[in-house]
Amino acid sequence: MAGLNRQILLKSRPEGAASLDNFELTETPTPEPGEGEVLMRILYLSLDPYMRGRMSAAKSYANPADIGQPMVGGTVGEIVKSRNPKYSVGDIVLGYGGWQEYALSNGAGLRKLDPTAAPVSTALGVLGMPGMTAYVGLLEIGQPKPGETVVVAAASGAVGSVVGQIAKIKGCHAVGIAGDTEKCRFVTGELGFDACVDHRAPDFAKLLEAACPEGIDVYFENVGGAVQQTAWPLLNEFARIPVCGLIAQYNATTPMPGPDMFSVLRKRLLVRGFIVSDFASKQADFLRDVGEWVRTGRLKYREDIVDGLEKAPTSFIGMLQGKNFGKTLVRIAST
Amino acid sequence: MAGLNRQILLKSRPEGAASLDNFELTETPTPEPGEGEVLMRILYLSLDPYMRGRMSAAKSYANPADIGQPMVGGTVGEIVKSRNPKYSVGDIVLGYGGWQEYALSNGAGLRKLDPTAAPVSTALGVLGMPGMTAYVGLLEIGQPKPGETVVVAAASGAVGSVVGQIAKIKGCHAVGIAGDTEKCRFVTGELGFDACVDHRAPDFAKLLEAACPEGIDVYFENVGGAVQQTAWPLLNEFARIPVCGLIAQYNATTPMPGPDMFSVLRKRLLVRGFIVSDFASKQADFLRDVGEWVRTGRLKYREDIVDGLEKAPTSFIGMLQGKNFGKTLVRIAST
Repeated sequence: MAGLNRQILLKSRPEGAASLDNFELTETPTPEPGEGEVLMRILYLSLDPYMRGRMSAAKSYANPADIGQPMVGGTVGEIVKSRNPKYSVGDIVLGYGGWQEYALSNGAGLRKLDPTAAPVSTALGVLGMPGMTAYVGLLEIGQPKPGETVVVAAASGAVGSVVGQIAKIKGCHAVGIAGDTEKCRFVTGELGFDACVDHRAPDFAKLLEAACPEGIDVYFENVGGAVQQTAWPLLNEFARIPVCGLIAQYNATTPMPGPDMFSVLRKRLLVRGFIVSDFASKQADFLRDVGEWVRTGRLKYREDIVDGLEKAPTSFIGMLQGKNFGKTLVRIAST
Repeated sequence: MAGLNRQILLKSRPEGAASLDNFELTETPTPEPGEGEVLMRILYLSLDPYMRGRMSAAKSYANPADIGQPMVGGTVGEIVKSRNPKYSVGDIVLGYGGWQEYALSNGAGLRKLDPTAAPVSTALGVLGMPGMTAYVGLLEIGQPKPGETVVVAAASGAVGSVVGQIAKIKGCHAVGIAGDTEKCRFVTGELGFDACVDHRAPDFAKLLEAACPEGIDVYFENVGGAVQQTAWPLLNEFARIPVCGLIAQYNATTPMPGPDMFSVLRKRLLVRGFIVSDFASKQADFLRDVGEWVRTGRLKYREDIVDGLEKAPTSFIGMLQGKNFGKTLVRIAST
């Protein structure tokens, strides 16, 4: 296990859109675990929109990533050296190893995975942070009732696909928004949403209105920007808006004004920002429910996998532009 | 009881600020109650900010007032004729009689008052709609915890004064915002808020920040506009913002942009619009709790009373400009 550890460092912070210049591929000696530590060989790296926030210096719910350090990120890895009695060589673990081939951990925050229960990559997607984000945001904040209309953008993505499918399981009218017709076909044909609207269509506003004949009761906010402005007037009285992400605004260099507060007052809207860790107590419920829905085929998922750590920056930037189709993953090694 | 009924009609809808031209004083014969109806002689008319919304044609949570009809409004009146077995001549009732000296009612929505329990005018203020608005907005949406900071504008007014005093009763740090130093003195000296800041002070933002050394956990929104923009950056993570009114924006002819949604996401804010009737099931709790607090002197109130129906338009416009000092009432007759 001597040898080199390839890493992708955060080289600089973006001004506006993230670019390849913000990243740097480097090699360092593979580290040795100290007392109580393990060394993970990373199999899958998750690429998620929240990482764009970490690249900025602005204060947020988590500290910014450090310049000159490997970019942060969730990973599935195999334990290859262990000086921690809780983990053995060969264990597959969910962790936060970052954009590199090998990572140390003191064991805190690791979770052992059972490779016979589900493909281990799902621990980064439908059965991981994105899936749980969808589950708690929709059910805890959105509180969907049978017959209500739930709208979600990035509907073929890791979070949106789960939001709409749970909405269907709960008896709602599920409407997706996606970036091209192929994705929309997948969202209705494979995922079973009632409708999906292409936000690049020139008559997007009309199409969305037609897809929501009874208005919108839950608008699961993961994009912001023009999609938000189009959905907002369709909100019904007492609609709920879980605010999970604003990917369309992440590159903005000046703040975008939010929706008119009069609509919040007149329609008695509930708008609530959240991150998945705010609902950590729901993890067992999530794993039980979504685990069963995935096993029984009621809830489908799609992964968009590229091979090789060096592809991570291009894949990440593409995801921010909506070029991914499903949960974005980098396969760094195989078991 | 023959004779004339003076009324103030909505003559025209305002463009921008409401003006005296929008109202018209008229006289019509006092009506006779039909079968099942009562005739009320109105003692007190309540003037409230929501009425500005009713003057506009825009769709809201209630229908607009009709041009050429008496302006709508809550009233305390005395039954002077009754053809409804539930009400006797001499009963004092809370109702929705509007801007006039006499009003008919079929009894729906009337509530008998006990003049020995509290001054009957309080049924339009601290023990009525404004008091209950404060009670449900703060407790049901704001969810204040001991030691947290609660901020409310229009702090000497009918709603704000109750918000801050309940916040104190619940063990919070209560900070008011008001429009002059005399009001601020009343808010801290009489009502017992911990601090009160004059929003007309040139260094308002600094003063508010100094009054909230631990940030803001509940911002009870009843004004919007510049006060909202000043309070917003002081919000703590997981702050709650009950949206009850936007009086500073009611005269705006173009929508004002709302707060940046990034703050909602990053700080995981909860923003929720409401009107008091959304929480009708809490009325018994409200009357029990606030009734006791008023009786025992823990919760104080102040009324700003003008005499004579003809004064209602001037008083109403003044209230929208913050010229009132306490709950705004028009005394139309005495028992």
